[in-house]
Amino acid sequence: MATPRDRLAARLDAARNGVSAHGLDALLVSSPIHLRYLFDVVASAGLALVGGHGATLVVDERYAAQFDAATRERPDVAVRRVAVGESYETTAVQVARDLSLRVLGVEADHMTLGRVAAFRRVPAAAGLDWRETTGLVERQRLVKDAWEVGRLREAGARLAEVAACILPTVQAGCTERQIAWEVALALHATGFDGPAFETIVASGPNGARPHHRASDRRIEDGDLVVVDFGGVLDGYAVDMTRTVAVGDVSAAGRAWVTAVGRAQRAAIATAAPGVLPSVIDQAARTSLERDGLSQYFVHSTGHGLGLEVHERPTIGPRGDHDGPLVAGMVFTVEPGVYVPGVGGVRIEDDVVVTATGTERLTSAPAPFETHES
Amino acid sequence: MATPRDRLAARLDAARNGVSAHGLDALLVSSPIHLRYLFDVVASAGLALVGGHGATLVVDERYAAQFDAATRERPDVAVRRVAVGESYETTAVQVARDLSLRVLGVEADHMTLGRVAAFRRVPAAAGLDWRETTGLVERQRLVKDAWEVGRLREAGARLAEVAACILPTVQAGCTERQIAWEVALALHATGFDGPAFETIVASGPNGARPHHRASDRRIEDGDLVVVDFGGVLDGYAVDMTRTVAVGDVSAAGRAWVTAVGRAQRAAIATAAPGVLPSVIDQAARTSLERDGLSQYFVHSTGHGLGLEVHERPTIGPRGDHDGPLVAGMVFTVEPGVYVPGVGGVRIEDDVVVTATGTERLTSAPAPFETHES
Repeated sequence: MATPRDRLAARLDAARNGVSAHGLDALLVSSPIHLRYLFDVVASAGLALVGGHGATLVVDERYAAQFDAATRERPDVAVRRVAVGESYETTAVQVARDLSLRVLGVEADHMTLGRVAAFRRVPAAAGLDWRETTGLVERQRLVKDAWEVGRLREAGARLAEVAACILPTVQAGCTERQIAWEVALALHATGFDGPAFETIVASGPNGARPHHRASDRRIEDGDLVVVDFGGVLDGYAVDMTRTVAVGDVSAAGRAWVTAVGRAQRAAIATAAPGVLPSVIDQAARTSLERDGLSQYFVHSTGHGLGLEVHERPTIGPRGDHDGPLVAGMVFTVEPGVYVPGVGGVRIEDDVVVTATGTERLTSAPAPFETHES
Repeated sequence: MATPRDRLAARLDAARNGVSAHGLDALLVSSPIHLRYLFDVVASAGLALVGGHGATLVVDERYAAQFDAATRERPDVAVRRVAVGESYETTAVQVARDLSLRVLGVEADHMTLGRVAAFRRVPAAAGLDWRETTGLVERQRLVKDAWEVGRLREAGARLAEVAACILPTVQAGCTERQIAWEVALALHATGFDGPAFETIVASGPNGARPHHRASDRRIEDGDLVVVDFGGVLDGYAVDMTRTVAVGDVSAAGRAWVTAVGRAQRAAIATAAPGVLPSVIDQAARTSLERDGLSQYFVHSTGHGLGLEVHERPTIGPRGDHDGPLVAGMVFTVEPGVYVPGVGGVRIEDDVVVTATGTERLTSAPAPFETHES
C-alpha cells in the first residue's frame, strides 16, 4: 500500500521547515530510510537535497524509473540522474551549485567519514559549507501520524495471528530451525512483505542468549523456548516474543515466566504521555528485582518501531535523549531473564502511546504452554 | 559451517600486521562484517580493538555468550563486556586506556560522523589520537582464501540448482510475486541460510527497471521476465540472473537476449589476473555497442561477492581503485539492456579469478525460454 500523497507532502513540508530553522540552505538526505519516509521510494542508493527550494532527488539509472514514478505530480520534487561513470558525490554537488545552495547539512548519524571526504574532494564543492546535523528527520519519525499508526495496528494484528498459529507447534522433537522456518511460512501466508529480522528460536540453555541464532538443537520436554519474530508490512516493522513452556518445566522456569510477565505489565502500565523512557525501563527492573531476578535482565526494556525494526525511542536506562513520551510513539516492551548455562525467558509486545496511556498492537496468550501430543 | 580456526588466526595476523604497518597502536573495528570475517561472530553490535597487543572484543550482554564461544581457545583474543547503562564508546575507550593504546585507526567507510563524535566526547578519550583509515580489512577481503572459494563454489552450485528448478515455472499467468516466493522456497529447500537480497522478478515493461520490486503483475505470453536472485550460505553470498522468454517473444526481444549473452561472454573472456575491472566493463559495453544497444546498458557490469552481496571489486567504468584483478577475487558479470516502457534483459553469473582466467561459479541455460503448457 502506497503512502498517501498528502502524508508525504506534510512530511516534506515539516522537513523543509526544520532545515530552514537550522539555518541550512538544504539538508543532504543520505539515509535510505529517510528517502522512503519522505518520498516513498525503496532503494539501496540515492540522495536528496531538501530545503527552501523544495527537494531534488539524485539517483542512478537503476532506480530512476521508481523515483520518477514516486515524484510524479509532486511539483516541489525534482529528480536528477547520475550518469554511468559519474559519481553521486559529483552530481549532488552540481545540483547544489545549480540551485545556489551553499550551507548544507549532512546527516551525522548516517554519513560515514569516508563519504563526507568524498563530497569535499569534488572540485566544484569548494565554497560549500558542510554542517553536521543530527536527528532532523529522525525526530519527525519518532511520532507516527494516523496513517502510520493504522499500518502498525494492522501489522500488529497480523503478527498476533502468526503467533496464534505458530506457538502451538513449538513441541519437543522439533528443531529450532524448523520452528524458524514455520514462522517464515506463516509470515508470508499472513501477507507480510517479509520478516523484520532473522527469527530467534532459543530453546533450553540457548535461551540464555538473548540474540541466539536458530540452530539444529532439538527441543526437549521441559524446555523453555524463546521465539522472537517480526514482520514488515508496507515498510513498517512489528516485533513480538513469546516463551513457550514445553511439557514439564521446572518450578524455577515457571517462576521466571511469571516474573517476566509481571515486569512487562508493570512497564506497560507506566507508559503514558509525559513519562520518560528510563522510568518505564526502571518499572520493569524494579518488578524483576522484587522477584530476585533483576541481575538476569541484561538489555534495555524496548526499542522504537516504524520503518526500522530498531529505531528511537530507546526504552532503557540511557533512553531519555528524546525526552518524555508523546502520543503516537510506538515501541516494544520486552523484559527478559537470562540465566547463563540454564535458560531464559522473554515476553515482548508492541504499544502505541495514546492520549492517556498506551494501546497494545500485539497480543497472544502469555505465558504460553504446549504439551507433548 | 564454522570458519576454520587456522583461517581466522591467519586473517587476524594479517590485520594486525596491516595495523602496525600503518603506524597505529590499534584499529577500532566497527563494521559487523569485519567482526564476522575476523572472529566468526554474527551480531548487529560489537567493536574490536585490533593491534600489536592482539584483539579485544567489546560486546554487550545480548551477544556476550556468542563472543565468548567464538573466542575460546584463541589466546590472542579477549572479550570485554559493556554493562547495561554503559555505552560502547565509554567501554572501548577504557579498553584503549587500559592497554595503553593511543593512536587509534577508525574505519572511515563504516564509522559515521555522529559515532566518532561520541567517541571523542568520552572524557577518558582526551589524549587519544584518532586517525581515519580506509580499506584495511576490505583489502584483505578482496582476495578470497581457499576455504572461502570453497564455500562460494558450493553456494554457486546450489544457486544453479535453484535456477534449474525455478526457471521452468516462469509461465504466463503467474504473478511476479508468486515467482519470487517460489524462489524463496527453493532457496530454503536447497539449504541456503536465506536469500541474499529481495528477489527481483521484472516482467514485460517492468523489465526496463533494473531494480524493480516483484509486483502483482501477471506474466503474459510474449514477455521477457528478468529473475534476479541470490542466496547466503555460511555467510557467503552468491547472485544470479536469468531472463526468461515466455512464449512468443518479439524479434527485438530475442535480439536483446542474444546481445546480452554475447556481452556477458565477452566480459568473462576478458577477465584474468592483471586485467583492470574497467577493461572487463568496457568489453561488455563494446559488445553491446556492436549490437546497437550500449545506450540501454545503464549500470556497471558487476560487483564483488563474499560476506556482502555487494562488495569490492566494482566491475565498472570507475572500478579501478583496487587495481588489476588478482587470483581469488570473486565477482558477478551481469550486463543488461533496459528499454524504457518496453522491457529489459539481464544475464548474470558469478566467477572467481584463477591463475589463468576465471572459473564460473554459477551456470544454467542462458537464454532460457518457457512456453505455455
